[in-house]
Amino acid sequence: MITLKEIAQICDVSISTVSNILNGKPNVSEETRQRVLEVVNQTGYKPNYFAQGIRKQKTKIIGIIVEDLNLFSTTPIVGAIMAYCEELDYRTILINMRLYDKWQDTWYNDEQKFNSVLQPSIKELLSIKVDGIVYVAGHCRVINCFPDDFKIPGIVVYGISNSPKFTSVVIDDKKGGYDITKYLISMGHRKIGVIAGTPDNLHTMRRILGYQKALFEEEILYNPDFVRYGDWMRPSGYREAESLIKEGVSAIFCMNDLMAVGLYDYLYEKGIQVGEDISVVGYDNKEISECIRPGLTTNEIQLEKIGQEAAKIMIKMLEEDYVASKSQEIIKIPCRLIIRESVKKNQ
Amino acid sequence: MITLKEIAQICDVSISTVSNILNGKPNVSEETRQRVLEVVNQTGYKPNYFAQGIRKQKTKIIGIIVEDLNLFSTTPIVGAIMAYCEELDYRTILINMRLYDKWQDTWYNDEQKFNSVLQPSIKELLSIKVDGIVYVAGHCRVINCFPDDFKIPGIVVYGISNSPKFTSVVIDDKKGGYDITKYLISMGHRKIGVIAGTPDNLHTMRRILGYQKALFEEEILYNPDFVRYGDWMRPSGYREAESLIKEGVSAIFCMNDLMAVGLYDYLYEKGIQVGEDISVVGYDNKEISECIRPGLTTNEIQLEKIGQEAAKIMIKMLEEDYVASKSQEIIKIPCRLIIRESVKKNQ
Repeated sequence: MITLKEIAQICDVSISTVSNILNGKPNVSEETRQRVLEVVNQTGYKPNYFAQGIRKQKTKIIGIIVEDLNLFSTTPIVGAIMAYCEELDYRTILINMRLYDKWQDTWYNDEQKFNSVLQPSIKELLSIKVDGIVYVAGHCRVINCFPDDFKIPGIVVYGISNSPKFTSVVIDDKKGGYDITKYLISMGHRKIGVIAGTPDNLHTMRRILGYQKALFEEEILYNPDFVRYGDWMRPSGYREAESLIKEGVSAIFCMNDLMAVGLYDYLYEKGIQVGEDISVVGYDNKEISECIRPGLTTNEIQLEKIGQEAAKIMIKMLEEDYVASKSQEIIKIPCRLIIRESVKKNQ
Repeated sequence: MITLKEIAQICDVSISTVSNILNGKPNVSEETRQRVLEVVNQTGYKPNYFAQGIRKQKTKIIGIIVEDLNLFSTTPIVGAIMAYCEELDYRTILINMRLYDKWQDTWYNDEQKFNSVLQPSIKELLSIKVDGIVYVAGHCRVINCFPDDFKIPGIVVYGISNSPKFTSVVIDDKKGGYDITKYLISMGHRKIGVIAGTPDNLHTMRRILGYQKALFEEEILYNPDFVRYGDWMRPSGYREAESLIKEGVSAIFCMNDLMAVGLYDYLYEKGIQVGEDISVVGYDNKEISECIRPGLTTNEIQLEKIGQEAAKIMIKMLEEDYVASKSQEIIKIPCRLIIRESVKKNQ
């Protein structure tokens, strides 16, 4: 591949003249500019972004590290980050840590395991000289992502940075649990069962808080027997159904759409009609929620908005020498209630 | 950041000695090695992968360019490529062109539009000095991906390279159409309708070929009135249902699961029972196919296998100085029939 130096020799100008022309700087005669650009085109010279980064101290590349690309939440977030960056003329490059695929759930609290993949990923992006790093988690946890003295801007998405130096963008799970419970109450339900996610999970805990807040506001006594824990998978929705229904609930709030499908399985088996004999709501608004029958009322996680917001903050940090405030900033993106046919007005 | 040169100065050895030690080469005294490694650790020196690439001519990074990360087929392929590469100690880095998101279907035949995104993506990966590039298409087309004199190995996945210099890995759509039609025939169906994809699409054309081949083998006359074209979206499955059913078909082969859901919508509305009054099969094996009722018999696209195969060939090219044969190699990965409850034996 031809170098800047060789182009300079061919054109009989200095290297910095060639560089200035390529970077669109003024103070070069039009004749020289034309001559150099002609040679550049003829020789097929490719500017070396890495070397450019050294010169300009900015590559306009943003690195994205994802915990696992194969999770349903990750690609829409990543797509939105990329769209926003592109809009503002930033390029993006992605590294996939594949943590869930590799280790399922055994790495959440294993800092060593986690770092054995995270650290090389960060190093790699630093070596490409990215301007900043967006970290996209697979589910909401407090995450030790970047060191406090990290040299470039970092941001944590769909998870919470344990260091107050970095901004986090997450979904507003408490409000999500609150909104969907309020909706059920507005439809006349007062005995509302919950098929929750795993108990030690932040999404679960905050959605239950929202559920409790909504009940409290309506002066409905919280009954812990109405709350069952699943594991986010379809069979657990089926499994928890029977005993929960025996409690006499008229509506069930499933903390994801997949467990709602499991609950549908049970209800179908028993001849109990969803949206008639019992009301069901889900969470996520996955494709399945509008394909099952009756259509599932659910809380859409606005993944695109989350990605967009994260990219906006990242680029603000890069372009305006934005400094994160000392007190940790956690930006919460609300969910959006999608009403379909699975909830009936309770008389 | 400290440089190799500064470490050499601190230790009072040559730069190449430091480099040799960091690269694990012999012919250095144990004492010097210890001294240098201590300084490296103390100063937190980070090897620069890019510069390493120049020295070794190999970075062990494989670049992946995807047409759009948000398509359902892309992430499983990418995940499998990454898993395989990781296994063999290669790192991967991904660039998302976002073509569908940006331009829907207006770029398929617009080389200029296409290249305005492809060329900078390739340049970027070349500038990071990747060892090879895996190109992942969003749907099967003949694609002008890499120039014939491309300097590093390239491979095209889920699409077909128009240059015979590059291997392509695709799904075996003809066999897919054949297998699923054979299955329907084995279940006693002889009047088999088709809700196909868009007419000018390679997936559509090859699946129809397979359908025709299966009919031919069973001496069933091909009736073009039994084949209707949808657009891969749910409403088109609904739209084509009525007139197709009027033809008196006993089974309908939908070329994706989403159009099968649209067909289910129509049948539900008319009180026609899937798997009883009429048989339906889909294609893809998306999550929806096992959540709708009755469960949809479908042809799974083995996306992980496609990714795995592509990565295998790429690494073979890199490690064994593998040369693609002059005649273009197109590797076809078969689909896998997933039998659920939507097909009934026809008496």
